Amino acid sequence: DEESLLLASTLVLDAKRGRNLEYILGNKYVKSYIFYNEPFLRWILYVFIALDLTLAIFEEPAVPNASIPYWGTMVMEFACMCYFSFRILHAMFFQYSRVFFKDAKNIIVMVSIVLTLIDMICYIIWQNMSPDTHPVRWSRPLRPLFIVNFPDGKQIRRAFRNIRRTVPDIMNVLFLFLMSVLLFGLLALKLFAKRGLKYPTGIPYFSNYFDSIWDLYVLVTTANNPDVMMPAYDYSKWFFIFFLIYLILCLYIFMSIVLATIYNNYKKNLKNEIRAAVFTKRKQLAKAFDILKVSRHDEHVITHSRWKQLMGLLLPNKSAAHTDLLMKILDTGNKNVLDKKDFLHLSDLLHLPLSEVKDRQTLFEKYFPDVYNHRYSELFKRFVRHKAFRYLFDFLIVINAVFIAIDLDVADWFFLSIFTVEILCKLYVFGAKEFFLRFWNIFDFLVIGSALMASIIEKATEKANEEISTLDVLLVLRVMRLVKIFGSIKRFKVILQTLVNIGPSIVTYGGVIFVFYYFFAIIGMELFSGYIHYYGYDEQYIGSHGTNKMLFCGNVKLNNSLFYKAHYCNNNFNDIVQSMVVMFELSVVNQWHVITSGFVLVTSKVARLYFFAFHLCCVVVVLNIFIAFILEAFILEY
Amino acid sequence: DEESLLLASTLVLDAKRGRNLEYILGNKYVKSYIFYNEPFLRWILYVFIALDLTLAIFEEPAVPNASIPYWGTMVMEFACMCYFSFRILHAMFFQYSRVFFKDAKNIIVMVSIVLTLIDMICYIIWQNMSPDTHPVRWSRPLRPLFIVNFPDGKQIRRAFRNIRRTVPDIMNVLFLFLMSVLLFGLLALKLFAKRGLKYPTGIPYFSNYFDSIWDLYVLVTTANNPDVMMPAYDYSKWFFIFFLIYLILCLYIFMSIVLATIYNNYKKNLKNEIRAAVFTKRKQLAKAFDILKVSRHDEHVITHSRWKQLMGLLLPNKSAAHTDLLMKILDTGNKNVLDKKDFLHLSDLLHLPLSEVKDRQTLFEKYFPDVYNHRYSELFKRFVRHKAFRYLFDFLIVINAVFIAIDLDVADWFFLSIFTVEILCKLYVFGAKEFFLRFWNIFDFLVIGSALMASIIEKATEKANEEISTLDVLLVLRVMRLVKIFGSIKRFKVILQTLVNIGPSIVTYGGVIFVFYYFFAIIGMELFSGYIHYYGYDEQYIGSHGTNKMLFCGNVKLNNSLFYKAHYCNNNFNDIVQSMVVMFELSVVNQWHVITSGFVLVTSKVARLYFFAFHLCCVVVVLNIFIAFILEAFILEY
Ligand code: NA
Repeated sequence: DEESLLLASTLVLDAKRGRNLEYILGNKYVKSYIFYNEPFLRWILYVFIALDLTLAIFEEPAVPNASIPYWGTMVMEFACMCYFSFRILHAMFFQYSRVFFKDAKNIIVMVSIVLTLIDMICYIIWQNMSPDTHPVRWSRPLRPLFIVNFPDGKQIRRAFRNIRRTVPDIMNVLFLFLMSVLLFGLLALKLFAKRGLKYPTGIPYFSNYFDSIWDLYVLVTTANNPDVMMPAYDYSKWFFIFFLIYLILCLYIFMSIVLATIYNNYKKNLKNEIRAAVFTKRKQLAKAFDILKVSRHDEHVITHSRWKQLMGLLLPNKSAAHTDLLMKILDTGNKNVLDKKDFLHLSDLLHLPLSEVKDRQTLFEKYFPDVYNHRYSELFKRFVRHKAFRYLFDFLIVINAVFIAIDLDVADWFFLSIFTVEILCKLYVFGAKEFFLRFWNIFDFLVIGSALMASIIEKATEKANEEISTLDVLLVLRVMRLVKIFGSIKRFKVILQTLVNIGPSIVTYGGVIFVFYYFFAIIGMELFSGYIHYYGYDEQYIGSHGTNKMLFCGNVKLNNSLFYKAHYCNNNFNDIVQSMVVMFELSVVNQWHVITSGFVLVTSKVARLYFFAFHLCCVVVVLNIFIAFILEAFILEY
Repeated sequence: DEESLLLASTLVLDAKRGRNLEYILGNKYVKSYIFYNEPFLRWILYVFIALDLTLAIFEEPAVPNASIPYWGTMVMEFACMCYFSFRILHAMFFQYSRVFFKDAKNIIVMVSIVLTLIDMICYIIWQNMSPDTHPVRWSRPLRPLFIVNFPDGKQIRRAFRNIRRTVPDIMNVLFLFLMSVLLFGLLALKLFAKRGLKYPTGIPYFSNYFDSIWDLYVLVTTANNPDVMMPAYDYSKWFFIFFLIYLILCLYIFMSIVLATIYNNYKKNLKNEIRAAVFTKRKQLAKAFDILKVSRHDEHVITHSRWKQLMGLLLPNKSAAHTDLLMKILDTGNKNVLDKKDFLHLSDLLHLPLSEVKDRQTLFEKYFPDVYNHRYSELFKRFVRHKAFRYLFDFLIVINAVFIAIDLDVADWFFLSIFTVEILCKLYVFGAKEFFLRFWNIFDFLVIGSALMASIIEKATEKANEEISTLDVLLVLRVMRLVKIFGSIKRFKVILQTLVNIGPSIVTYGGVIFVFYYFFAIIGMELFSGYIHYYGYDEQYIGSHGTNKMLFCGNVKLNNSLFYKAHYCNNNFNDIVQSMVVMFELSVVNQWHVITSGFVLVTSKVARLYFFAFHLCCVVVVLNIFIAFILEAFILEY
């Protein structure tokens, strides 16, 4: 009986938390499942996933001064694989085999672990046999799969499912779009090749089919507009019409259709996901009900005593009065028992923020009730709660802004202490619990708290001559303080509140984008690391102080290139951090063809395929899904 | 009685055509209103509006070789104003004064006419007093108002109404966005100014507040990414975080919110517009019903004889059988009379493409029925209608594509005649009416027909040495032929059909964008014409063959500028056509800051305001509305 109670409470918790792992309904398995859901096990998983991904910093090509011998990172990676294996075997234990092995994500995790181990063995052998042949750790692009495919990364997996379901639908549009590029490429080749035009850099203009379609593909991203048009336009004004039609069709119409398709799918998938989640939740609660129910007057119900036992497991810290109240809320017919229909609302009820009076007391009130409830204290509390208090500090921020704008830094200790006092007052009056519920309070606390700490460090150490000093951090924190003004302006409140609400989802999409970035960054490092270095651009200085090999970003092929002239040498794949920066720059799209051209010069034109694949995956698909998500989030919130 | 019949039929026509001008319900006024709606009067209006806008080609600064003395364009403009006045006075005649003068568009047209006339007088005086002071025709930016504010431009006006209603809602987001730019600008100034960094061109990096916010505003358009980051990033990798946060916030989040707001408003407005249009239509039909109704058995109905009279006016060419059929369709209760509810469906019915047998006959069938219905002819028709016929010609296009790709132009006469034969066959079998109903047939007819004509001209004249010859046109037409393959591929059909369906609306938005372009182009010509010229970029050639004034695009200030190095000199405001091209380039956004920098160099930094205003109006607002329109159109069609 205690066993069934445990099972029921686990099912209710599953419903509340939106978990949908199917486990064997035996006591041993349920206990294992409960253990599996222990937060500390999940946190250890997160730490190991993070560690596994972080290894790219220490492996060759490593971030400068962070290189570790290969056996060092391998030991760490092996530890990760061990914990991942433990985790997946644990999940295998409490699930039916047929369920477990039908789940693609379990297979993917197991295959990834095996491949990683094989790769490690291969690498060790290769490294010891012929280290000069640049041994390849080919399993590294698989690492982000662990983020996506462990059951704990539900939000991210949902986003990936969304992408997977959207791709077939946009295939038609993308295919039509690529066909159009091919057709226009042919046309451009026919029109321009025979005229022998040249770009300002002297490169021939639309001289072969591969260059022709590449230039036109880049044009859809607008990155080489209007440069790609100018030679033809200088030749004859009529050629503008060619580019006009191409851009209207491929950029404005096709790309909008891609967005429309993605947005439409996103909405549809969102609806289905919510429907599926609600269905799972009801199924779990119905199961729990069936376990707890007793027969009474031809009806299946849950009695008050059963309810108390269940609550004892679910809410062990709450008083009997509280759990009785919860039952009263559910018991719509005032029958003092819960029927199935009542019980199905339980998971929503558990989400309601019902707090008891003792919870609402501030810590200070609890331990010093006499002081806190004293007459003067009451007066002070009324003052702090009054809107004049808010206006006063809003006014002080404006004054602070003026001081910052006219570079009067001397007063900053004054402002810092004033705003610290504000936070302390609010903490006293509202208590920590209520204080930290509001976004702007957290913001304030972080900005002022960090500034306070940084100021103290700054006073204490007094070191300078570093690239970035504590002073710079202080400066940023000082200006960030001004952001609070936005929070006080009424017309911005809806927008900012929406932003705060969708913040967690934005972070999820950040995770999705990180997965793609990491995948492409690792591949990019294998393909392009070491070709381009940053040694500064002062050719005379390098000529006299360095070796000739350091000229032109360490690669003479870059001489006279746009890449070198634009000072893009730090946009390279020499370590994971710089690669990630390049990924971001490629996502912003502008000048991505110049970055590409640099790596084409030092390798070959085939390198374009890598950048093309990145653009198609990350910009056309993923970024548009992100925009669809923001669109829908804002439309729903408004 | 005849008068009321005329009024009723006019009301029904109003409902059918979606006209919503309110006129006085007297015979004289109705007749005037009917005359006002005569197509030829509207077409004359369109011609005069087009003429008025075209004048910019001939006025100073004129397109090369198209200059006309100022009195020439003034005579034409005066003619336009006369016709506009006639048109607006005509509308004034049949409307109640209070209705007429409450309508903003009438006021705008009248004020524009008056201002134009004043401007013309001013200009003549100024021109004759002191022609050297560069007299300004300041009323020219008002010209596009005539497109928008005559009642005939309903579609365009609806789009403008949409923009007007959307602007207040995005003000908050835009304001928050601009405030963020100001704040980040302050931060960037504080962080970077003291470090004395420089851009590759030697320009100081974030050295003053105005430049700082300009660079960051340009960054939101992505146009100077990653260039704007590189000096700081080369200095310290940590500064990447600043640009990352800025771009995520201002580009990805704020700009998506702007799109979301615009899209949301667009949907809302669309719904309201449709609701209002339906309401107006019902009101007009109800009015018509009230005029025609007779009392019978306590009910108001329209009798059969009344119906016949009405149809005699509305569909004078249709047979009695046809109009009786229409009445039967409306007469849901089989009462042989129409009650009000029946009658309200009339306008939808008039939109149905009901054709009589005699309409369905092809012209050939009508005049040579024996030949057309002969046994062999029937066999031939069955062959043309068979899908093998389509496959055959699809196959021939593919062959044609191969010939074009491998540059085998000799066979083109063969393909051209084959495809001409295809069109003739289809015309014979389906008749012109049915043939020209399909988009792909029209496309085919135009492409093949033009190619045929161009080929004949080419053969006949045999002239060469021109910038663009008939051969180029032929080439384009030849490649365009291949587009027909897309129409045959099933998976593309939905997309292409949607494109064809929304085509007219896209043209409407083209009109909207034209209005903004024209407005900004005229102002741009007043501000920037004559500063930058295109003389080619071969400095040695110019040095020896031309004057020194022709160096650096005719302006020594452009020496060493990015604008000159990128060969952007043809992106100038020297005539309306080139200005329009610049407008389009600015809309595509890429490198717009380089174009701006050229005009800043030859004038002053204040020039940035013009380009900023263009970006905010045309890109942030208008282009997003266009994207919202495409989004909604595709989501509705799918
Ligand atoms: Na761009």
